[in-house]
Amino acid sequence: MSLLVVGSVALDSVRTPTDQRDDVLGGSAVYFSYAASYFGPTHLVGVVGDDWPAEHTQLLRNRKIDTQGLQTVSGAKTFRWTGKYLSNMNDRETLEVHLNVFGDFDPVLPDDFRRADFLFLANGSPKVQRKVLDQMQGPKLTVCDTMDLWIREEHDELLDLLTRIDGLVLNDSEAQLLTDDSNLVRAGHKVREMGPKFVVIKKGEHGAMFFSEHETYVLPAFPTERVVDPTGAGDSFAGGMMGYLAEQDSFEPEVLKRAMGYGVVVASFNVEDFSLDRMLQVERADLDKRLAEYQRMLSF
Amino acid sequence: MSLLVVGSVALDSVRTPTDQRDDVLGGSAVYFSYAASYFGPTHLVGVVGDDWPAEHTQLLRNRKIDTQGLQTVSGAKTFRWTGKYLSNMNDRETLEVHLNVFGDFDPVLPDDFRRADFLFLANGSPKVQRKVLDQMQGPKLTVCDTMDLWIREEHDELLDLLTRIDGLVLNDSEAQLLTDDSNLVRAGHKVREMGPKFVVIKKGEHGAMFFSEHETYVLPAFPTERVVDPTGAGDSFAGGMMGYLAEQDSFEPEVLKRAMGYGVVVASFNVEDFSLDRMLQVERADLDKRLAEYQRMLSF
Repeated sequence: MSLLVVGSVALDSVRTPTDQRDDVLGGSAVYFSYAASYFGPTHLVGVVGDDWPAEHTQLLRNRKIDTQGLQTVSGAKTFRWTGKYLSNMNDRETLEVHLNVFGDFDPVLPDDFRRADFLFLANGSPKVQRKVLDQMQGPKLTVCDTMDLWIREEHDELLDLLTRIDGLVLNDSEAQLLTDDSNLVRAGHKVREMGPKFVVIKKGEHGAMFFSEHETYVLPAFPTERVVDPTGAGDSFAGGMMGYLAEQDSFEPEVLKRAMGYGVVVASFNVEDFSLDRMLQVERADLDKRLAEYQRMLSF
Repeated sequence: MSLLVVGSVALDSVRTPTDQRDDVLGGSAVYFSYAASYFGPTHLVGVVGDDWPAEHTQLLRNRKIDTQGLQTVSGAKTFRWTGKYLSNMNDRETLEVHLNVFGDFDPVLPDDFRRADFLFLANGSPKVQRKVLDQMQGPKLTVCDTMDLWIREEHDELLDLLTRIDGLVLNDSEAQLLTDDSNLVRAGHKVREMGPKFVVIKKGEHGAMFFSEHETYVLPAFPTERVVDPTGAGDSFAGGMMGYLAEQDSFEPEVLKRAMGYGVVVASFNVEDFSLDRMLQVERADLDKRLAEYQRMLSF
């Protein structure tokens, strides 16, 4: 089934305690679509400036990611983010953000993209996310990401959006901020009561929690010694999850849980190198192998 | 099989963001032995002052916990700890510590205790832990807990102890401190290379990790909305784990993993009320029911 992601396409500069990279391929829609591409074709909508290297687009196309929705604004620059990871590799500081073309992002979906069955609205302004929703012709499943900035500054627009989507993916501190509840189990259910049928709380190195009316569960992260760059972990998690759902054309509870498992596994590969470098080396068979290992780890 | 715990017996005063309790039953050997008592008889060695309420000893005896090793020092006071949980209910501050009789704790094991097959050395000075080990007649399995204080102040004694035990249980920040490695997977293996055959890293609300030569796994905490008082979570985890191992008279890998599951489940009950109050209401059947729920949660 068709899967569409709308979100940021970026050039990231990343500092870790031991290494760094400058102006590497990044952005939530990029991590998401690459992760989803293990499972089937993905359509991407985003915007870049004319400083965008053509080989990045080619890399996505080679993965059957449909980039006809990737708009180029001439005379302008691509979104750039510079971040620094602290020694625990879980907390990070944003050193610089230059929104550039992403600041005026006004996504217009190609006609055939509007009929996508599975839609992921990557982190962005709820106003922009709503504009995408308004162009869609009734997707089967809409999942959305958000962040602290929108919870604080576009609160009403976000609450309105939550009544129109099926699933929300957000991280632990964001769930606590949105609900003013420090207990993540209560916070997860409170977010669900704001509208979405299900909520996924991402906990970084501690895994992810799932909440629906009848289910609450936690899946740990896959334990890896090699945490080189956590950038894009949340988006590759979401891409693995949504990619599997689209492949299965289902979001039944048992399919959703397995999709969460794939999300955990894709994210665990993604953090093993900078940018998309580790995902570039990994194939679907590697995901399946690690998923089986993960399932064995959780069974007793 | 016989299980012995040596550790603190205390009167705790606990403040949480919404409630508090003063001078309630606590201490690592108390939480441990009560948790272990779901699985079979447990022998306790500890020390109290003559301010110790007799009903606390009776409560333990009613659970078939052998308290003949609980020494009373007359004219002296029981160990008292006062702590305050921050709003996230995971971090805490120690407000007051009065070691009292525990400061001079010099455990002398009753003769029949020395033949115990399973030994848990609850958090305490490595010097005292070694004295216990020296009195034992070759237990099948010795597991030890420790804390940042000993890692900093009795480092050499702790390293020596690690070469003499089978398992070490410690929390995430302690594992990072001991190994100077912020990645918990690497830290777990580094601790293991210091001597123990296996290492368990407790992550509070995020569960626990297990490391042996051939296995690495993570089990999440059981998700509960009702986190009233996390005091004793780590000790009730260890008590559930060791109690099950002693009951099964085995520490084969698959038994150890199931034991970790029981530890998670007992701890999840323990945090649902102050002191031992929630465990007092829970029976073995409740543990089994929640364990089955936990296993379902982790399977897909």
